[in-house]
Amino acid sequence: MPITANNPNRKSWLEIEPNSDFPIQNIPFGVFLTKENIVTVGTRLGDFAIDLGALQQLGYFEGIELTDDVFLQDTLNDFISDGKKTWRLVRNRIADIFDAENPTLRDNKKHKDVVIFNMKDVEMQLPVYIGDYTDFYSSKEHATNVGKMFRDPENALLPNWLHIPVGYHGRSSTIVPSGIPVHRPMGQTMPADATAPVFGPSRLVDFELETAFITTDANIMGENIPINEAEEYIFGMVLLNDWSARDIQKWEYVPLGPFLAKNFASSISPWIVTMDALEPFRCAQPKQEPTPLPYLQQKGDHAFDINLQVAITPENGEETVVCDSNMKYMYWTMSQQLAHHTINGCRINSGDMMGSGTISGPTEDSFGSMLELTWGGKNPLKMKDGSERKFINDGDTVTMRGFCKNESVRIGFGEVSSKLLPPIPTK
Amino acid sequence: MPITANNPNRKSWLEIEPNSDFPIQNIPFGVFLTKENIVTVGTRLGDFAIDLGALQQLGYFEGIELTDDVFLQDTLNDFISDGKKTWRLVRNRIADIFDAENPTLRDNKKHKDVVIFNMKDVEMQLPVYIGDYTDFYSSKEHATNVGKMFRDPENALLPNWLHIPVGYHGRSSTIVPSGIPVHRPMGQTMPADATAPVFGPSRLVDFELETAFITTDANIMGENIPINEAEEYIFGMVLLNDWSARDIQKWEYVPLGPFLAKNFASSISPWIVTMDALEPFRCAQPKQEPTPLPYLQQKGDHAFDINLQVAITPENGEETVVCDSNMKYMYWTMSQQLAHHTINGCRINSGDMMGSGTISGPTEDSFGSMLELTWGGKNPLKMKDGSERKFINDGDTVTMRGFCKNESVRIGFGEVSSKLLPPIPTK
Repeated sequence: MPITANNPNRKSWLEIEPNSDFPIQNIPFGVFLTKENIVTVGTRLGDFAIDLGALQQLGYFEGIELTDDVFLQDTLNDFISDGKKTWRLVRNRIADIFDAENPTLRDNKKHKDVVIFNMKDVEMQLPVYIGDYTDFYSSKEHATNVGKMFRDPENALLPNWLHIPVGYHGRSSTIVPSGIPVHRPMGQTMPADATAPVFGPSRLVDFELETAFITTDANIMGENIPINEAEEYIFGMVLLNDWSARDIQKWEYVPLGPFLAKNFASSISPWIVTMDALEPFRCAQPKQEPTPLPYLQQKGDHAFDINLQVAITPENGEETVVCDSNMKYMYWTMSQQLAHHTINGCRINSGDMMGSGTISGPTEDSFGSMLELTWGGKNPLKMKDGSERKFINDGDTVTMRGFCKNESVRIGFGEVSSKLLPPIPTK
Repeated sequence: MPITANNPNRKSWLEIEPNSDFPIQNIPFGVFLTKENIVTVGTRLGDFAIDLGALQQLGYFEGIELTDDVFLQDTLNDFISDGKKTWRLVRNRIADIFDAENPTLRDNKKHKDVVIFNMKDVEMQLPVYIGDYTDFYSSKEHATNVGKMFRDPENALLPNWLHIPVGYHGRSSTIVPSGIPVHRPMGQTMPADATAPVFGPSRLVDFELETAFITTDANIMGENIPINEAEEYIFGMVLLNDWSARDIQKWEYVPLGPFLAKNFASSISPWIVTMDALEPFRCAQPKQEPTPLPYLQQKGDHAFDINLQVAITPENGEETVVCDSNMKYMYWTMSQQLAHHTINGCRINSGDMMGSGTISGPTEDSFGSMLELTWGGKNPLKMKDGSERKFINDGDTVTMRGFCKNESVRIGFGEVSSKLLPPIPTK
């Protein structure tokens, strides 16, 4: 079935800024709350939020097999369960409905009044209920930087890294959408010169620039997803700020991995950009040497050319861009990650989220964390207001943006933006 | 409010074997499926499953504030959200209903016919929807054994171990109830004499003897649960077999912890035994030296004297008990685990599960995994049928049991029993 929604020549009858992340070729999916306290599944065109539940009730999805309440929900999980064919039919249909040449909704003021909202009048929610959250560690540049700093500069990559898309489980209960502030965590750390650990606020709160993909139901327990089918089960992507407390992490993470250093908060952008919308930006992944085991081998292009950016805005201050990276630098592809995750029979459900791990590029300004950008705090970053940052200060807002662009279209993610607040006093 | 359900002198009008895990002083909570395909929340008395949804509809919980459908559900999450006061009221009421002296249900055949099922006529389900699953590593004996085998026999415990209840996130999607078979996982391993990793079935599938506790909603994101309140938020406990593939684990776990070595399956016993029922078996935890940081300090007894046992039954063979341990050996208490888990503001939801980590005792026959029992395969265990085991064979059934016993009452968990099947062929 062709992805007619991707037609680069199509224009919408809705007014959309030329440089918007959300042209009619994007059509992401999300969940929003209206001023009338109604939660609904929606899409976004320019600065308009579109109520898909209302569209369906008005008959605009006729002919597509959908349950009556699939959009009248507070998560996308049921819709995602419907599978790739349905996602494509719905997205193609939405493009038709808002096509400049299609008068049906365009000329129906009554319908438009209940379907179209201004983005400033809605509040974005988490788009999915995330049953399980996995975070990978798939940027070679990031793993190398961390290895150089904390282990052996001569043998920065651990022996398994080039053979396995290394990953670990994260915490679902503290994944929040863009806009929700995050509190600096309290915790136990071992200062360099101390003989016993101390308790207090983390002194080294960091962001991690990541993307994440959202899956559909893919297998029963015990079955694997072969790598050549993996992309069929990926619904779309979001931006992910995997907040990290480096001092807590350093003291706790051996031998079972990061725990409290990560699970105080993970922030995501609220619109899931579909893999269909990203299809024009597919590109070659980095060459993998040594060749991975057969269950991780794939032909063709499986990386995506997604520009990524991180900015820090001090309290009442001006924004400073601190990192420009790109998702295409990732060594392991999303299909390799999903094939690996299920090779042991691990069950994947609709709404599960899998993070890329920090995406660092090859140059110093493309490193995806303050840890790397300041090289462990040794080289503080200069902010536009003259202040310096080794890590994130209370009152700072961290904003991540992502977009793809070619000669004819720009497909963006919007942003994930969250402010770091001081700790809540310990009870 | 007194826990009248714990009255050791109470007898039930239902016939219960004297040595049953489920006397009228237990009253655990679970979810079962009847032959009529009805799923309901229930309790167990002896070999009878009691339909709490039916009991409520018949008015037996009158006077207790409960939503109409709290038991007509396929999980206990809503009931657990109601909080400790409600749990206690309901459990006390159930004890009254089945008290030998109470004729109300006893003498109402019509009611009994819809409320009481034979255990052999129902199928146990997962008792809760588990949003997040955390596994701790809280047995000093286990951590020491593992450290001796894999790291430095002279410095078996890592520097953080005596200061932190070390834990990590597990996978919720593959937690299954007792009775569901588990497939040997396929995966990537690095044989000792190899220069490159190989792919195939794990050769070292192991059990881990654990208990786990189930929480209620406890905090908002950013807030901690102080250690002195932690027990208020623990609903009850189950037995947990944290299936592990040692060869996969060895190759993958540095630096981010175990992943595919664990997430192919975790099996739990289906009845949640409440903390109220376990109260008579509270006992002193091991002395903690050095004294932990203040947020982990507590007064009084917070361990529980729960006998634990593991048996292996070969295909069509006879059972051999391979381990006798006890939960009281755990160095870190459940309240310390929960206080630590939330000290950074990590949100805890109703139905979250937290495993103890392998519970090994001080003697060789009390080690809680084959890894330790055979000391990495060096000392195979003799089975009753004459065969030997270094790890678990295809066709073996691993059964874990747990019970508490004093002069007047026995409170048990029943069992978690699951058969290891060969791998499903890789697609």
